[in-house]
Amino acid sequence: MEFFPSSLDNLIDCFARLPGIGRKTAQRLAFFVLRLPREEAEAFAHAILEARESVRYCSVCQNLTDGEICPVCASGKRDGSVICVVADPKDVAAIERARDFAGLYHVLHGVISPMNRVGPDDIKVKELLARVSRGGVSEVIMATNPDTEGEATAMYISRLLKPLGVRVTRLAYGIPVGSNLEYADEATLFRALEGRREM
Amino acid sequence: MEFFPSSLDNLIDCFARLPGIGRKTAQRLAFFVLRLPREEAEAFAHAILEARESVRYCSVCQNLTDGEICPVCASGKRDGSVICVVADPKDVAAIERARDFAGLYHVLHGVISPMNRVGPDDIKVKELLARVSRGGVSEVIMATNPDTEGEATAMYISRLLKPLGVRVTRLAYGIPVGSNLEYADEATLFRALEGRREM
Repeated sequence: MEFFPSSLDNLIDCFARLPGIGRKTAQRLAFFVLRLPREEAEAFAHAILEARESVRYCSVCQNLTDGEICPVCASGKRDGSVICVVADPKDVAAIERARDFAGLYHVLHGVISPMNRVGPDDIKVKELLARVSRGGVSEVIMATNPDTEGEATAMYISRLLKPLGVRVTRLAYGIPVGSNLEYADEATLFRALEGRREM
Repeated sequence: MEFFPSSLDNLIDCFARLPGIGRKTAQRLAFFVLRLPREEAEAFAHAILEARESVRYCSVCQNLTDGEICPVCASGKRDGSVICVVADPKDVAAIERARDFAGLYHVLHGVISPMNRVGPDDIKVKELLARVSRGGVSEVIMATNPDTEGEATAMYISRLLKPLGVRVTRLAYGIPVGSNLEYADEATLFRALEGRREM
């Protein structure tokens, strides 16, 4: 690409390296940034550095935070005897939006995936075991995704946790609220029937 | 969004302000940046500032450049008597890729669009007129897009140019090379027939 000024080419390259951003989209984004008011371009550059510098893992639950301990772990109002294990910080955000869970979290930052060469040591499993071993935990809710890898990860971790004398549960499977039975897949319907409850 | 650290939220906001980037995509991009090696995050931030600072309009053709005059205008090998008028710097890149045009360019940075409140004074029309008035130009090729606004802009500018005694031409319409007649629209086929040439 010798047709744009080199600093513009360079910015296009940077955008094109982002996941899911092709060359054409990268061009469009770079041109947009060129036309931003100077303060906004500076704010953007600063936001990248600031996030990269200040965001770290909470020393208790491994969620992202810009302090030493995340707001959930630091809050005195949460029930420390229940830990909800999720694969990703975005899952914490999703569960928090439901406004019903009052316990703490543990973020694995991934799932076990032999296909992608991710083993138990590549995700935050031993931090979870250490945390539960320290005592005071009565229940661990496995809230990894209901897919093969999430399932296998939940299974693997629950086997390690049970000898520690803690109750291990799994999120319920079933038909999503607001969905249409007609379009539910067989596996989901099977699980929904299996898990049926008294009305 | 109180579930992510504020510096991460801030970065997500920055990405979400880019055109065509929704909230979910912005999240994905921000998480990717968080995981970048420090040097790469710094290079990204620097690229934004550098492009915003150094890229300006060529004083001759208004194309983007990081010097005073763009490489095309500065080249001694181009024919200054032919000017190809395009709407956007990306169009210069497209025509340069064809490797056939040896003249100079003029970048309008937009097209006249009453719907979007873009008038002739909002694009680089008067710079083109001044350039042609200075003499030495024999032909101006209107290479705006073959859509309503590109057409109207070409028409408007050609009316201003003709009194200056310069030849004004328009890119040929026709069926695209490598395409399939079956899928050509009627307007294109009409133009292709109208513009047919001896073999």
